[in-house]
Amino acid sequence: MLAPARAYTAPMNYCSDCAQPVSRKIPEGDDKERYVCDDCGSIHYQNPRIITGCLPIIDTRVLLCKRAIEPRLGYWTLPAGFMENGETTEAGAVRETWEEAHAVVETRHLYTLFNLPHISQVYMFYLADMPKAEYSSGIESLEVELFEEADIPWDELAFPVIRETLKRYFEDRKVGSFPLYSADIVRPARR
Amino acid sequence: MLAPARAYTAPMNYCSDCAQPVSRKIPEGDDKERYVCDDCGSIHYQNPRIITGCLPIIDTRVLLCKRAIEPRLGYWTLPAGFMENGETTEAGAVRETWEEAHAVVETRHLYTLFNLPHISQVYMFYLADMPKAEYSSGIESLEVELFEEADIPWDELAFPVIRETLKRYFEDRKVGSFPLYSADIVRPARR
Repeated sequence: MLAPARAYTAPMNYCSDCAQPVSRKIPEGDDKERYVCDDCGSIHYQNPRIITGCLPIIDTRVLLCKRAIEPRLGYWTLPAGFMENGETTEAGAVRETWEEAHAVVETRHLYTLFNLPHISQVYMFYLADMPKAEYSSGIESLEVELFEEADIPWDELAFPVIRETLKRYFEDRKVGSFPLYSADIVRPARR
Repeated sequence: MLAPARAYTAPMNYCSDCAQPVSRKIPEGDDKERYVCDDCGSIHYQNPRIITGCLPIIDTRVLLCKRAIEPRLGYWTLPAGFMENGETTEAGAVRETWEEAHAVVETRHLYTLFNLPHISQVYMFYLADMPKAEYSSGIESLEVELFEEADIPWDELAFPVIRETLKRYFEDRKVGSFPLYSADIVRPARR
């Protein structure tokens, strides 16, 4: 739950309002450094981003995508991506599943939520049913495949959040109950 | 779950990398309009923001804050605010509760999650215990008070997400079970 000392900050050189240089400083009444315009005084806040995705399931199998893009090109992942303005977390998860795996899913509920404060990201995965075993590679995927538990490529998973979500799912499946699982990944775990 | 046609976009005039003008356009390989620099080609993505907070409880009472700031100045709210880079959703909820109500809380778990796609916000409230009935107004609050269910000022609540979280809590309390509640508020509901 503790935040690390160094927060991720996207670099910014100029004010997006007036084009003058910005500096890092603590605005009056605030207690955190922000980019502040040296000329017009605009404060440019930066906030964490949400990555939303699905754990698509059909019968005893789950759907994974082999990444066609960096980071972790060639490693297996669940379909997920940055949530867009104007959509919901659930709609974003469904959209990403379509874009990366050309799979139609019906979400059940939010299943895992991970905080990655060292990179200012929040991951959310929805448990989702595939009505049909129909899928193919989207532009960001090299391959898309259904896997039985015994065949999951545990050593070739892209990120700790993928491993945690899959581990949790196969454990929960034994008892038939899938409560929300929430965890913090404060520093990147060994894969 | 459907996203509305118009997504919230923060205005941007100039590129924060090189200070040249930006235009709204769909980058190659994308399908959504972004701010793109006319000169250096930088794409400036905008994404939803998380508002994180607590439902602080002690014995049969809950803690509410009367807002000292717009919007909804003078209306009652739960302590919550924008999640900061470098922190977790839970740490942000605890921080906001301290800043707005000078109350120490111990979070139990994520309790409600609301999508507000028309303003590109995601609200998260943690169910949180107050070990002591100690609190006072932070700079963004006019008053902070503990309320019994019978005394909740239902007609003076600041936002639909506050009403929904409180309603849900008092219902769940009857059965002693507090599962995650997730909902979309696609357009502002009547208060």
